[in-house]
Amino acid sequence: MSTVIKGGTIVTHDLTYKADVLIEGGKIAAIGPSLSGAEVLDATGCYIMPGGIDPHTHLEMPFMGTYSTDNFESGTRAALAGGTTMVIDFALPAPGQGLLDALDMWHNKSGRAHCDYSYHMAITWWGEKVFDDMAKVVDKGITSFKHFLAYKGALMVNDDELYSSFQRVHDLGAIAMVHAENGDVVAEMSARLLAEGNTGPEAHAYSRPTQVEGEATNRAIMIADMAGAPLYVVHTSCEESHEAIRRARQQGKRVWGEPLIQHLTLDESEYFNPDWDHAARRVMSPPFRNKMHQDSLWAGLSAGSLSVVATDHCAFSTEQKRFGVGDFTKIPNGTGGLEDRMPMLWTYGVNTGRITMNEFVATTSTNAAKIFGMYPRKGAVAVGSDADLVVWDPEKEKVITAGAQQSAIDYNVFEGKSVKGLPRFTLSRGHVAVHDGEMRSQEGHGKFVAREPNGAV
Amino acid sequence: MSTVIKGGTIVTHDLTYKADVLIEGGKIAAIGPSLSGAEVLDATGCYIMPGGIDPHTHLEMPFMGTYSTDNFESGTRAALAGGTTMVIDFALPAPGQGLLDALDMWHNKSGRAHCDYSYHMAITWWGEKVFDDMAKVVDKGITSFKHFLAYKGALMVNDDELYSSFQRVHDLGAIAMVHAENGDVVAEMSARLLAEGNTGPEAHAYSRPTQVEGEATNRAIMIADMAGAPLYVVHTSCEESHEAIRRARQQGKRVWGEPLIQHLTLDESEYFNPDWDHAARRVMSPPFRNKMHQDSLWAGLSAGSLSVVATDHCAFSTEQKRFGVGDFTKIPNGTGGLEDRMPMLWTYGVNTGRITMNEFVATTSTNAAKIFGMYPRKGAVAVGSDADLVVWDPEKEKVITAGAQQSAIDYNVFEGKSVKGLPRFTLSRGHVAVHDGEMRSQEGHGKFVAREPNGAV
Amino acid sequence: MSTVIKGGTIVTHDLTYKADVLIEGGKIAAIGPSLSGAEVLDATGCYIMPGGIDPHTHLEMPFMGTYSTDNFESGTRAALAGGTTMVIDFALPAPGQGLLDALDMWHNKSGRAHCDYSYHMAITWWGEKVFDDMAKVVDKGITSFKHFLAYKGALMVNDDELYSSFQRVHDLGAIAMVHAENGDVVAEMSARLLAEGNTGPEAHAYSRPTQVEGEATNRAIMIADMAGAPLYVVHTSCEESHEAIRRARQQGKRVWGEPLIQHLTLDESEYFNPDWDHAARRVMSPPFRNKMHQDSLWAGLSAGSLSVVATDHCAFSTEQKRFGVGDFTKIPNGTGGLEDRMPMLWTYGVNTGRITMNEFVATTSTNAAKIFGMYPRKGAVAVGSDADLVVWDPEKEKVITAGAQQSAIDYNVFEGKSVKGLPRFTLSRGHVAVHDGEMRSQEGHGKFVAREPNGAV
Amino acid sequence: MSTVIKGGTIVTHDLTYKADVLIEGGKIAAIGPSLSGAEVLDATGCYIMPGGIDPHTHLEMPFMGTYSTDNFESGTRAALAGGTTMVIDFALPAPGQGLLDALDMWHNKSGRAHCDYSYHMAITWWGEKVFDDMAKVVDKGITSFKHFLAYKGALMVNDDELYSSFQRVHDLGAIAMVHAENGDVVAEMSARLLAEGNTGPEAHAYSRPTQVEGEATNRAIMIADMAGAPLYVVHTSCEESHEAIRRARQQGKRVWGEPLIQHLTLDESEYFNPDWDHAARRVMSPPFRNKMHQDSLWAGLSAGSLSVVATDHCAFSTEQKRFGVGDFTKIPNGTGGLEDRMPMLWTYGVNTGRITMNEFVATTSTNAAKIFGMYPRKGAVAVGSDADLVVWDPEKEKVITAGAQQSAIDYNVFEGKSVKGLPRFTLSRGHVAVHDGEMRSQEGHGKFVAREPNGAV
Ligand SMILES: [Zn+2]
Ligand SMILES: [Zn+2]
Ligand SMILES: [Zn+2]
Ligand SMILES: [Zn+2]
Ligand SMILES: [Zn+2]
Ligand SMILES: [Zn+2]
Ligand SMILES: [Zn+2]
Ligand SMILES: [Zn+2]
Repeated sequence: MSTVIKGGTIVTHDLTYKADVLIEGGKIAAIGPSLSGAEVLDATGCYIMPGGIDPHTHLEMPFMGTYSTDNFESGTRAALAGGTTMVIDFALPAPGQGLLDALDMWHNKSGRAHCDYSYHMAITWWGEKVFDDMAKVVDKGITSFKHFLAYKGALMVNDDELYSSFQRVHDLGAIAMVHAENGDVVAEMSARLLAEGNTGPEAHAYSRPTQVEGEATNRAIMIADMAGAPLYVVHTSCEESHEAIRRARQQGKRVWGEPLIQHLTLDESEYFNPDWDHAARRVMSPPFRNKMHQDSLWAGLSAGSLSVVATDHCAFSTEQKRFGVGDFTKIPNGTGGLEDRMPMLWTYGVNTGRITMNEFVATTSTNAAKIFGMYPRKGAVAVGSDADLVVWDPEKEKVITAGAQQSAIDYNVFEGKSVKGLPRFTLSRGHVAVHDGEMRSQEGHGKFVAREPNGAV
Repeated sequence: MSTVIKGGTIVTHDLTYKADVLIEGGKIAAIGPSLSGAEVLDATGCYIMPGGIDPHTHLEMPFMGTYSTDNFESGTRAALAGGTTMVIDFALPAPGQGLLDALDMWHNKSGRAHCDYSYHMAITWWGEKVFDDMAKVVDKGITSFKHFLAYKGALMVNDDELYSSFQRVHDLGAIAMVHAENGDVVAEMSARLLAEGNTGPEAHAYSRPTQVEGEATNRAIMIADMAGAPLYVVHTSCEESHEAIRRARQQGKRVWGEPLIQHLTLDESEYFNPDWDHAARRVMSPPFRNKMHQDSLWAGLSAGSLSVVATDHCAFSTEQKRFGVGDFTKIPNGTGGLEDRMPMLWTYGVNTGRITMNEFVATTSTNAAKIFGMYPRKGAVAVGSDADLVVWDPEKEKVITAGAQQSAIDYNVFEGKSVKGLPRFTLSRGHVAVHDGEMRSQEGHGKFVAREPNGAV
Repeated sequence: MSTVIKGGTIVTHDLTYKADVLIEGGKIAAIGPSLSGAEVLDATGCYIMPGGIDPHTHLEMPFMGTYSTDNFESGTRAALAGGTTMVIDFALPAPGQGLLDALDMWHNKSGRAHCDYSYHMAITWWGEKVFDDMAKVVDKGITSFKHFLAYKGALMVNDDELYSSFQRVHDLGAIAMVHAENGDVVAEMSARLLAEGNTGPEAHAYSRPTQVEGEATNRAIMIADMAGAPLYVVHTSCEESHEAIRRARQQGKRVWGEPLIQHLTLDESEYFNPDWDHAARRVMSPPFRNKMHQDSLWAGLSAGSLSVVATDHCAFSTEQKRFGVGDFTKIPNGTGGLEDRMPMLWTYGVNTGRITMNEFVATTSTNAAKIFGMYPRKGAVAVGSDADLVVWDPEKEKVITAGAQQSAIDYNVFEGKSVKGLPRFTLSRGHVAVHDGEMRSQEGHGKFVAREPNGAV
Repeated sequence: MSTVIKGGTIVTHDLTYKADVLIEGGKIAAIGPSLSGAEVLDATGCYIMPGGIDPHTHLEMPFMGTYSTDNFESGTRAALAGGTTMVIDFALPAPGQGLLDALDMWHNKSGRAHCDYSYHMAITWWGEKVFDDMAKVVDKGITSFKHFLAYKGALMVNDDELYSSFQRVHDLGAIAMVHAENGDVVAEMSARLLAEGNTGPEAHAYSRPTQVEGEATNRAIMIADMAGAPLYVVHTSCEESHEAIRRARQQGKRVWGEPLIQHLTLDESEYFNPDWDHAARRVMSPPFRNKMHQDSLWAGLSAGSLSVVATDHCAFSTEQKRFGVGDFTKIPNGTGGLEDRMPMLWTYGVNTGRITMNEFVATTSTNAAKIFGMYPRKGAVAVGSDADLVVWDPEKEKVITAGAQQSAIDYNVFEGKSVKGLPRFTLSRGHVAVHDGEMRSQEGHGKFVAREPNGAV
């Protein structure tokens, strides 16, 4: 069956033009004037854009014997509701666990996904088995490897492990990724804060000042440079980190920074809310920053020194957050955002003039597709590409509220924000998952996307 | 009649993939596997790329009662021979002359062009007539306005005129361009050098140190910022100028820098050649720089802080150069380069690993098309785009020599350089202008390209 | 007669230690413990510092047929009241007037000065006579030459004149100075604002955005670099200008920046006061800036990228300011500050921890003495130095008010500010000009200070 | 007995003037014209400067069961021969050893010193005892604490230890010091090089690229900033490290960089000498760099972003160096330089115009005295200061050769270099230790210098 999107304006990362889009067999079959098909979607007044790609989610992530509340079912449903048609999640091996084992565990979780997905593989320990497994993982289409410089005693790797892994990444033509915070200093600061009786959520922010992030970002860049590995820095939240990325890029190093929609639009004042639940729900790492840092992130998006807007979607319920009452270090780190990323970025970015529509597409979709080796299959409006599309109505408005969201948790960190610019239709490989505000997505429709190494971005 | 390019690998500014290209009616009709057409061009082992766009030429430019030797006929023929399928030339009104008059004069010259062309309009004086004419010129598809901060007493405008013109450019949704050298200081330095008996070609370089260029670039950027005009800086030749552009871009300003292929590959030692002719043939403004500045330009291309590689093709014969014997200020400024730009950049950039193939396409073609408002009609390998294409053979080699060139002048500043990477075919709107090294271009085939204002680059 | 300052702590630009100071014949005769002399000044609890040097004043400056209200009598009296023991004023030749003539006019005005003084010579036009006079002026001990890049049609010089003069400055071993604003753009912006009906004092600020200052600062630095002249940039008020100075200094260029106490402590909101008089009294060039720019200036003082805090004291009465009712371009530019510079900088700088006491001494006195060729005669607490000293009481407080000031004008731009840190005694060549709050200065006591060229700062 | 230095020109960090210097009781008693004393030293044609201070030496340093060859006797004799009148050595506690114990060991070694000396205390492990001892060490006048980020498994501390120690340094008003190289990466690279058969001295340089130094410098700065500790970075050898220091200083952070005379004048080509001994004798950490990095260091000295020139004098004989035949990681790290630092810096810095004489004094003496809390007792030519002086003859020349040196080792890394500018006299607290080229220094004359915390540099 064919579908045609008629009457809209196509917006890609570098073009804006009026044309119809014909979809057959889940792929874009034609782009041009006056196309026709069996099903017609009216895009009058709308922009037809590549569906969003969120390359940073943690669905059903194991934590303290339980799991983050949004799983591949509710998480990808939320994604589609907000115009995002693909997520890349993180497979996290336990210490000593083989990478292929971990991959199997993640494949087991993702069967219910409503949209396409892929994985990054985390390197949480080091050894010959990990070294060997990395090649096998790349063969299976997982070409990006995440490293944690924080979470000491858990996920964190040391600098010699980091350097060894980055060299392996280089040899395999893959991409290195890094969560950049100095775990040693964070641990020391956290212990001190607790010892001094600072146990509330605001102490989480005190324990992770911007210097720990700037330092670790610079360190990862230097080590990646020695290893010859391209580097993707997740959740860039502050000027210090952004400065290190800018400096590296200006020297011709292949480094990318990823601000989150949360850091772009929310600030540290959230942690001073007297309601423990309010503050704890916003606990994530890095924490929200002040407005000077926000300005730096927005400038980076328009200047091109920051490349991708993501969510780090890792949704814990209020009940789960309360594990940390009396000890902020036990509050599970993470917030939601999958459904809100694109409307929030459009509202605060495009509607305010900070970024152009083309930059919106680049930072929500195309850049991620290019960096992570799946362009133009994903991230493009082009003949032959997967028909992962969003038909964006710039006049559609709503007020964000947990009551109306797809996510399984009981709150939303953007509660009460008005957004203008929302999907009229979202298509996942041609299937109309969102139809004029109505969810028609199918559990299990999503498929794993194998990605290519040796990209030329 | 249809033409199909078969067996090649398409390389665009952001994609590399194997596909055939079908051309009908001078446009790209289809891209895909196993296409067929009436005429078949074998691209086996080759890259199919958008034809080059050189946005900086001076063909048949009036000078001291004569004209630069390469005109639209020989100049565009040279362009096609080297894989370039479009040029943008500069219409230069005389003092007091209306812009539309000047435009007519340039249209009269361009009738013999072998490939497509457009114009930039120079603002060489200021007044109400110029202000009014600017809107009419934009209506005719000329959406970029050039300003000279050098050539005092001739083309140079003062800062108040510059600011006024930049405001007008902003109002019209056009692009401001600038030749950035401090004309006051150059004039003073030149007079002093002559007074001290420094009359040879090397004094030309002494009279225009990098500071005069860095200063003027920074000044133009600041004034453009106040006026709200996007700014294109022609012939960026040194670190000081590049630094000003980098700094501006990092602040989110819309500024682009254009290194020339000459500055990327030749250096100041040329002026110390004891042969007056040798040195004088290389006299252009800005002059060639030292290797530190070259390194800065190459780094800028790969880091993205510099956007376009051009030629400033303005070819004077040795006889014309000799007007300046005994007084370097009378040596006509300019060199050739149209035929050599792409092979030289490929050889010294792609073959050495300094830039990728995609960056080659971006800087020789696509970026110029985007900046100057004609993308994706030009600068793209896309269905519906003009079939301005080059089929690039990375194994084809030659030694550059004036004896074998299309240009009408009697020398070549790249004489003796070996290049590897040359066109197998060059197509101008589907017409095969270069066929396996043989020139089949047609005088008069080229057409004027009207461009759009209000670009979103 | 001898004087001894007992019981205090000496604070210089690089030392803090307890010692007495013995003064004989107007010079420091001894420094050490337990000194005795005829007159004893009790410095218990106080800091003994070099008297302030304000290298930027305009006393009795000619303007529209009248003069700035504070002359050498009231101005230097105000200086001493605030701990400043020397000023450097600007001799301003009229167009065509010889430099020696202008110097005579300034010498005629300065006879009533209460404290020592010197002059900078302004280069307001260019010609052989100016070229020749410059050497004679240096011989008379005036070794710094000021250039205006603003005030088009009046004081402004063009870039070729600037370059010629800077070369002459280099040859004479003198210092180049510059008022850095792009006069062409200011004139154009001012005309446009008036044409649009913006006639009030706030339009003065609109007509001189930070870009015009940053641009001109960068230009002056580049031209000074080509001429080999050290450069002192007066009234650095914004980040753009500061950035240009930082960049130059980091490259080893001899460039200094001078923030004014007004720009450090007052901001642009002053111009939005609905009282015309309030706003007009604060009209000066450059205008006050926003808090981001203030932060940049304070950081520069502590980082050492900015060198001297001055006042640009040029006091016009409210009546004089009202020449500009209905046309902001006719409001005389200038504010007072001589009496308030040191207490304000101490209060907002030292008391807040932004700068150390030693940095206070460096930026109010010693750096100016070094740069302008009179160290350690001035700016030092050293045996043999002139006994220009201030005994500073860090506990002394007052509220600034025009009613209590020495200045002859009828208002004070710092009206209502509380300061903590004031002179207990101020000594001019050993004479106690301020004695515990009481003015004992002598009209005519001040003498001209000839300065040395070829400094090694 | 009194001594007078007559007929010379005093050069301090900020003054140049003709005067005699009278010395009584080991201190400067008077400065002025026509002084007289019992002993007269003729300084005609010479500069009288503060004696050099080398704040970075390792005399008789324990290593693999032996000691570095130059001890406090030969090392301080070499110092005086070259115009240096004070050294600061590093007390290095063994793992688990108390700081006071280590201090006793160092006091035992220093009894034979010819010139004054002090110590820095190294923090080589962390625990409550170290925490407690730090206060006692400060009470004894040792106010600077060194930390190694390299030498994994030996001296290296981890980031949490570093942060804890820096906080303690802050609380005690002391100075943090850091050897900045990423020890994890160095260890990994070294192992890999050995495994690949790269065992020679040149592999030492390969194992420590500039990135490992730049990274660690940036990390130490960030952590010091969080702890509020001023930071002194020893042996800054490359642009990456210098950039981190510049950036920090520009933000107002109290950070200083120390290039070594070796890195300023020797480059990496030394390691490619086919003579194993030649290369191994130059093995130190960081290794010598290329000329681009040298240029960066020289620019830093004149721009003020680098503060002190030291030697890291740690002299091993060729026999000791040969411990590392077949395994570069076993070559003892270190070179000499104490006798050559000042003549080499004068020759390559002052004589070439890169730095002024005043900057020479600042970087060889005064800055170290200020930073390390002993100014103006040391580092000054001032009444009351210790008479640690050098009378510098700018016309005196020699060729450096191991055969003529004071150092106990059998070679000199500057062998064959011609220097112009040498001591005529060197005085240690008034004692003439070097008299017109003749050594008259006294073993045991040197005394420990206790230093002050809470400096205001
Ligand atoms: Zn993370
Ligand atoms: Zn995450
Ligand atoms: Zn030009
Ligand atoms: Zn041109
Ligand atoms: Zn001024
Ligand atoms: Zn002024
Ligand atoms: Zn070391
Ligand atoms: Zn050392």
